[in-house]
Amino acid sequence: MATLVVLGSGIMATALATPFTDNGNEVRLVGTHLDREIIDSIKNTGVHPNLNLEVPPNVTAYQLEEAAEAFDGVDLVMSGVNSFGVDWAGEQLAGLLRPGMHVIALAKGMQADDDGNLTILPRALMAHLPDDLRDQVSISAIAGPSIAGEVAMRRHTCVVFTGENPEVLDLWRDLFATDFYHVWTSSDFVGVEVCAATKNCYAFGAGFMHGQLDALDEDDPQYVNFNYGAALFGQASVEMTQFMDLLGGQPSTVLGLPGIGDCFVTSMGGRNVKVGRLVGAGLTFTEARDRMPGVTLEGAAAIKVIGDAFERLTERGVLQPDQFPLLRHLHEVVAKDRAVNVPWKTFFGANGSGV
Amino acid sequence: MATLVVLGSGIMATALATPFTDNGNEVRLVGTHLDREIIDSIKNTGVHPNLNLEVPPNVTAYQLEEAAEAFDGVDLVMSGVNSFGVDWAGEQLAGLLRPGMHVIALAKGMQADDDGNLTILPRALMAHLPDDLRDQVSISAIAGPSIAGEVAMRRHTCVVFTGENPEVLDLWRDLFATDFYHVWTSSDFVGVEVCAATKNCYAFGAGFMHGQLDALDEDDPQYVNFNYGAALFGQASVEMTQFMDLLGGQPSTVLGLPGIGDCFVTSMGGRNVKVGRLVGAGLTFTEARDRMPGVTLEGAAAIKVIGDAFERLTERGVLQPDQFPLLRHLHEVVAKDRAVNVPWKTFFGANGSGV
Repeated sequence: MATLVVLGSGIMATALATPFTDNGNEVRLVGTHLDREIIDSIKNTGVHPNLNLEVPPNVTAYQLEEAAEAFDGVDLVMSGVNSFGVDWAGEQLAGLLRPGMHVIALAKGMQADDDGNLTILPRALMAHLPDDLRDQVSISAIAGPSIAGEVAMRRHTCVVFTGENPEVLDLWRDLFATDFYHVWTSSDFVGVEVCAATKNCYAFGAGFMHGQLDALDEDDPQYVNFNYGAALFGQASVEMTQFMDLLGGQPSTVLGLPGIGDCFVTSMGGRNVKVGRLVGAGLTFTEARDRMPGVTLEGAAAIKVIGDAFERLTERGVLQPDQFPLLRHLHEVVAKDRAVNVPWKTFFGANGSGV
Repeated sequence: MATLVVLGSGIMATALATPFTDNGNEVRLVGTHLDREIIDSIKNTGVHPNLNLEVPPNVTAYQLEEAAEAFDGVDLVMSGVNSFGVDWAGEQLAGLLRPGMHVIALAKGMQADDDGNLTILPRALMAHLPDDLRDQVSISAIAGPSIAGEVAMRRHTCVVFTGENPEVLDLWRDLFATDFYHVWTSSDFVGVEVCAATKNCYAFGAGFMHGQLDALDEDDPQYVNFNYGAALFGQASVEMTQFMDLLGGQPSTVLGLPGIGDCFVTSMGGRNVKVGRLVGAGLTFTEARDRMPGVTLEGAAAIKVIGDAFERLTERGVLQPDQFPLLRHLHEVVAKDRAVNVPWKTFFGANGSGV
């Protein structure tokens, strides 16, 4: 029996306990300082209040101050925080990890330095470790189309585990894979993580199709706006491929689960799409965000980080101004409160397939 | 002012009259023998009954026996029939076309010979023309994510015009492109048309995610089945790319509008998805089809044609048995009334990105 300690008790981190414990393993779920009520609920009732489901029996919940106890004697660690918690989690793990441990991370997003150089989040997490410790632990990540509740309900889900070491990825796969949770592995760490981050950006744009229809104010329109959404989705797939050129991933990673598949599921709903819908209907991003107080908007945050970095990269001549027209428009909407006005004519390159 | 004669008055052929006539042009819409009531309705009331909208003012409707009158003095021809009407339309056009005419076709699907060699439908259409005439007319096609009613409602729509002659494609683009109907051109005729045909196959599979959920018989399930659909969608994008290898299209054509974009919009709903949903819920394909009498199921028909051809191509050693596992499973469901049992383990190649 293997034991996994999870730092962060959000819905995805908790949902992943289902396949892991279905394989006869044990999970120790450690809440962050923001998760106090979640941990209390699991301790008292067994129910994760945001997931609205009972956690599996082999899950034990710990408050943050019990973290050292939870980490005791464990080799397998999941960083379960979201993109806003990565630096915090890195600082915590710097004190909790020991040589030989294996870490797998969930957060999706990017960080950038002042020159616009972009970094995937598992690397940002590990940057907080002392150099000698960092060389003695492995880092992997989980990506691919996964709505947390569906994983917890044991609905068929196909994902990609990614990292630099194929043997470590096989270890993680064997621990998690079940008859409903299907795991592939990819050593294109950068490519998979860049897809995972940027799909959140483009899913924000998917909300526009609904919002633009809302703005027409038609009662029960017989024809909706899927052509609009499909065109944005197509341009997203083109730009994801261009991200591979820019940041060093494999173009083939965009196909299948990590890019197209994950972008599909993320575009089907959720907070990202909801705020995109409000903006598509005519609110500024600031107004839309203010209507959703307390809601974390990782897609919008990723658009801000990447779009800001693109301005630096364009100044430096690394990017041309006509590259990534959709991502740049999303950035205008999110960072500059501009109205949605999709620059269709700039899409798809010369032949409609983007290349 | 240009005049376009359209053979076939289905919803897509009729919807395309909107951008064409918005540019100051005229459309002559000729019904097939199956379209008699549609043409009567347009002549009497101006309304296309299936589209449930008025046709634009510069559209004149003709019954089939008035076809010669409609074709008189016209250089631009649209074959507006669906995949079931392509051979019939080719026979009609053999008597109606004259040298110098330009033809643009809408039908999506494939035909195969007894050895399993697959042909795109614009070529199948032209095969009915006498050899000397065929060399003196051009053939192009319209593809990309377009729900007909949305085009007729002037919702933003991005499409690809494809064919072998870039100058002819530019001519067609200039006639159709408007502020809402955005046109790109691609000379990857085979690639674009193969994407257009196969997206109908994979959209049938998209219905499974809803059907499998229906079969669980949960009242108002809080978690649905998008992970399942996203995995199928990802595998569809992988297999579309493999179709390019098999049939000679450009892999980049799968990205953007012709492949991913069109597969997205087709997966959002329609008859294909509806029958896929019934099968996903547990009916055999024969039972599901019998519940939808009189409904044309182009996706299922394309699955039958392509899957049958794959059996020949596999016997001949052109294909390996482990290639195209999703398309082959769809074929088992449609042609052999097998139950849905998605072969997840065979998907995505070794690294989860299909390559």
